[in-house]
Amino acid sequence: ANKEPIKPQIVATKTVARTRLFRIETVDLCFANGVETRYERLRSGRHGAVLIVPLLDRETVLLIREYAVGTERYELALPKGRVETGETLFAAANRELMEEVGYGASRLTYLTSLTVAPGYIEHTTHIIVAEKLYEERRPGDEPEEIGVMPWRLAELPALLAREDCTEARSIAALFMVKEKLSL
Amino acid sequence: ANKEPIKPQIVATKTVARTRLFRIETVDLCFANGVETRYERLRSGRHGAVLIVPLLDRETVLLIREYAVGTERYELALPKGRVETGETLFAAANRELMEEVGYGASRLTYLTSLTVAPGYIEHTTHIIVAEKLYEERRPGDEPEEIGVMPWRLAELPALLAREDCTEARSIAALFMVKEKLSL
Repeated sequence: ANKEPIKPQIVATKTVARTRLFRIETVDLCFANGVETRYERLRSGRHGAVLIVPLLDRETVLLIREYAVGTERYELALPKGRVETGETLFAAANRELMEEVGYGASRLTYLTSLTVAPGYIEHTTHIIVAEKLYEERRPGDEPEEIGVMPWRLAELPALLAREDCTEARSIAALFMVKEKLSL
Repeated sequence: ANKEPIKPQIVATKTVARTRLFRIETVDLCFANGVETRYERLRSGRHGAVLIVPLLDRETVLLIREYAVGTERYELALPKGRVETGETLFAAANRELMEEVGYGASRLTYLTSLTVAPGYIEHTTHIIVAEKLYEERRPGDEPEEIGVMPWRLAELPALLAREDCTEARSIAALFMVKEKLSL
């Protein structure tokens, strides 16, 4: 089970649906054992996304509360957004931070990259820790004002007990930052 | 920022693409401030999915290593799968555990529910902790044998340092179980 597996060959790919936001592709695979099978996957923008962990101080993170149409409720999570063409990860993180939270950061650090559902979604999210914050708001494309909520990392269990905090990348990133800061 | 926001009204929804696995819908929303906007979202099966944290003993979790066509690499993560019509979450968790890992569990516990991208994906994953394992394999629909890898929860940092461990729900669930067991 632990030896390096041989990757299946991609025999063919075909776009089967395309909307404003999404592109769906079929992928015909041939596994090393000869089994052939067809999967579907969701393609994403080529630059991925950033999720920002804004630290107001060493113990306090800034969360945002925003309406999520996928689950039809307000969700409490870390700010995030797409990386635009020509933008570095740090520039994208700082822009999203200014648009969604009203702060810029003098120190940005790459933490890791996470996937949401690697079996059928290409999407990768790069986690960026933002420190040494200063007030700066830039206009974003949000339809209503975003609520910003400071949360002490020591109180992560109380956050996870809330019904509106469910987004896996935010939760994983908060645990990783808490561990890194030894809180 | 902390007062209860008024949910936007869903004015209309329309399916704009449908494939074997995916259904994409446009949603016209009217926010409390009068702003109208159109979003797209991915609908999912109505029963959601389960992600299982199989504990071989109090300190050791069983991971699986499976080819993920979304990211085109083998990913190391917790076993998971869809909940079928008529199945309880626990029955779905035990079935997936038998199919993917070759174990059944005498004790199943609900931990929490996570979302992958609530802003544009409906999908919800229920996290089930599986204990008191016994060997039992059921045939699944996997195209090749799945690698099973035991991992000590105390060595979570080494797991996160691997390039093939990126799936946010698995990482969040492992941290939550580690904290619950005070490891």
